[in-house]
Amino acid sequence: MEGTARAPGSITGRIDGERLWNRLMEMARIGAIPGDGVNRQALSEEDIAARALLIEWGQARGFSVTVDEVANLFIRREGTDPNRAPVLVGSHMDSQPRGGRFDGIYGVMAGFEVLETLEDLGAETRRPVELVAWTNEEGSRFDPGCMGSLVFSGGVAPDAFNTVTDGDGTPFGDALAATISAAPEAARRGDQPPPAAYLEAHIEQGPILESMGTPIGAVTGVQGSRRFIVEITGDAAHAGTTPVRARRDAVQAALRVIGRMNEIAEDPQDVLRFTIGRFDVSPNSPNTVPAEVSFSIDLRHPDEAVLESTGEALMAACAEPASPCAARIRQTFAQSPAVFDEDIVSLVDALARALEMPVYRMPSGAFHDASFISGVCPTGMIFIPCRDGVSHHESEYASPEDCASGARVLAAVLQTLANR
Amino acid sequence: MEGTARAPGSITGRIDGERLWNRLMEMARIGAIPGDGVNRQALSEEDIAARALLIEWGQARGFSVTVDEVANLFIRREGTDPNRAPVLVGSHMDSQPRGGRFDGIYGVMAGFEVLETLEDLGAETRRPVELVAWTNEEGSRFDPGCMGSLVFSGGVAPDAFNTVTDGDGTPFGDALAATISAAPEAARRGDQPPPAAYLEAHIEQGPILESMGTPIGAVTGVQGSRRFIVEITGDAAHAGTTPVRARRDAVQAALRVIGRMNEIAEDPQDVLRFTIGRFDVSPNSPNTVPAEVSFSIDLRHPDEAVLESTGEALMAACAEPASPCAARIRQTFAQSPAVFDEDIVSLVDALARALEMPVYRMPSGAFHDASFISGVCPTGMIFIPCRDGVSHHESEYASPEDCASGARVLAAVLQTLANR
Repeated sequence: MEGTARAPGSITGRIDGERLWNRLMEMARIGAIPGDGVNRQALSEEDIAARALLIEWGQARGFSVTVDEVANLFIRREGTDPNRAPVLVGSHMDSQPRGGRFDGIYGVMAGFEVLETLEDLGAETRRPVELVAWTNEEGSRFDPGCMGSLVFSGGVAPDAFNTVTDGDGTPFGDALAATISAAPEAARRGDQPPPAAYLEAHIEQGPILESMGTPIGAVTGVQGSRRFIVEITGDAAHAGTTPVRARRDAVQAALRVIGRMNEIAEDPQDVLRFTIGRFDVSPNSPNTVPAEVSFSIDLRHPDEAVLESTGEALMAACAEPASPCAARIRQTFAQSPAVFDEDIVSLVDALARALEMPVYRMPSGAFHDASFISGVCPTGMIFIPCRDGVSHHESEYASPEDCASGARVLAAVLQTLANR
Repeated sequence: MEGTARAPGSITGRIDGERLWNRLMEMARIGAIPGDGVNRQALSEEDIAARALLIEWGQARGFSVTVDEVANLFIRREGTDPNRAPVLVGSHMDSQPRGGRFDGIYGVMAGFEVLETLEDLGAETRRPVELVAWTNEEGSRFDPGCMGSLVFSGGVAPDAFNTVTDGDGTPFGDALAATISAAPEAARRGDQPPPAAYLEAHIEQGPILESMGTPIGAVTGVQGSRRFIVEITGDAAHAGTTPVRARRDAVQAALRVIGRMNEIAEDPQDVLRFTIGRFDVSPNSPNTVPAEVSFSIDLRHPDEAVLESTGEALMAACAEPASPCAARIRQTFAQSPAVFDEDIVSLVDALARALEMPVYRMPSGAFHDASFISGVCPTGMIFIPCRDGVSHHESEYASPEDCASGARVLAAVLQTLANR
């Protein structure tokens, strides 16, 4: 029988929503931009400042601080059996260049609130609980994102990204070294066994929970994704002199192709995400029949089989409707869905209900560090609503109440997992 | 009864296709670019060189040379009654930056061939015959085009364009003064009565004559044109997290609007020209639902009533299919159709048939200097086929045979008009 050092009710009741909110707002001052936004890109001065503040808070509570070779930052509260693998909780502190005050940082602050509350209560856990702030989740300064969790999961060598440069030509390796040496308080993390579990709280970044009036999402996984580029080739021609039937008009051909693709991507359940986000025309002149169009397709679904069959149908749907233009489609990116640990998803679901919070099981539409960590240990995520589904924007907002609710469920699940 | 100094047959039989072709090729060396193209933009060094060559050829045949205040260049062969208003023939010598060897210059060389042939024959005409090379038809260096014919037609003051600058900041007025002073042989043209008629030969710049196997187009006018900009406003959203039904996707809305517009612009006769040439998306990112689309509409038809009703229908067709996005449409340009003189169109038609050349009555899809001159005097145009309908491109091509055929019809019509 699994025990808990104290009953879940006791810790969840002590989560301090006001303290959590104040810490979020203090972090939001680092890299603040007009409109309540945040520009705190990976390994920037602002990121370094946020890390310093987190380290200061952690050391003030007596937690140990370590950093690994890609600057993933760990704040550890020991368990009664320090030889047991820790339970990991966290998210990321970097933001988009025009980001908000909650994406990523909420999961780090909520995790820290759990560590603090355990400490406030003097609550023992069997396993250590470790808070992690992953390096460069956003990928806006250094591409790709999720570098920290990719390296931690063993999918990529620690030095694989060192020569990636930002827009100013600064190599990732240089920014990494500067970030690590700016925090000498953080000891270098040694070899460790894989964590026993990983839990990440995050704003939904979509409109579903808000529209349902549901404060907690029990995230079942991260949907898979495929990206394609479609290139249509016709003939440039004079818009005044060329009869419509004599044209090979690349824009009109693209519209026919997308019309067919819309039919293929039609999903009565509205789970499939089909997006034409980029659409470039050449020569893009008002009085010239377009010769070339290139457009992007972003396709996402939590079920690999659906992703596979829809992708194949889209690839087959180009040539015929594009006629008399030529059409080519090629896949530029593919990532399989991540499926989270059913035991953790059930725990989130059950413990939220025990706290009398409505909860909704849902896949994540966006990538998260948890996508990669799910390959290393049992993983789960907790979503909270965000206003109008808006994220990656200055106006991104989650209410203090929802932030506190998410932290309470996080605390309950973490305490359970840490006592196994 | 109208007479001719000699029978039309005699002059048309003496048109020298080889001399015409050689002059075209000699002009094509001025500003030659790779791929058989020409870069001879208005009032450039190359334009000045082409003018000098034409003046040299004209003076060698004893024709008088004048230039007006916007550098329209006139080569005049006197008639037996010099007090009669002249018959004008010509086109332009400037080209697009990546233009061909025929657009504009063909009409000037064909007109010069007629003057030379009249001179070869010692053929008298009652009226003077004046060859004109209009300034800046293309509008690629100095915007707008047709400056020379616009000023000549009295629609615009002679100094209206002086402050227009090219891409290097050179004012039109400076380039104009330099061009005029580079040709001191050309006397300043004094006040003149309006011409009795104007005739312009030109490559079709479209595929119709070639596809019909018809060497001569009797141009009935220049189709009118309206331009619009449509702006669609939706909401940017995360392509992974936002359900399709919760989106306000500006690209998808634009596709619905264009689909509706395609229905409106459907023309069984294939005379209406409807072109979406520019299509811009914001933020134009593969993983973001598009927030904004702006696209252009170019609409052309020879019948003002059709242009009017179709334009109104397009303007009314935006809002509903764009929903739930917002859509605005505004007209940015409108030009009424030009209708050429029926007597001249009939002459072109009849005299081509008399020469046993198939002829097709057709509107011009492109603008020409003749559009503006038609407001001043009876005007007509003669089209010849060009390969694949291509123009404004290095590969533009008209065969020596078609060039000669056009010049023969031009000679017949000019001689008739000049003897009235």
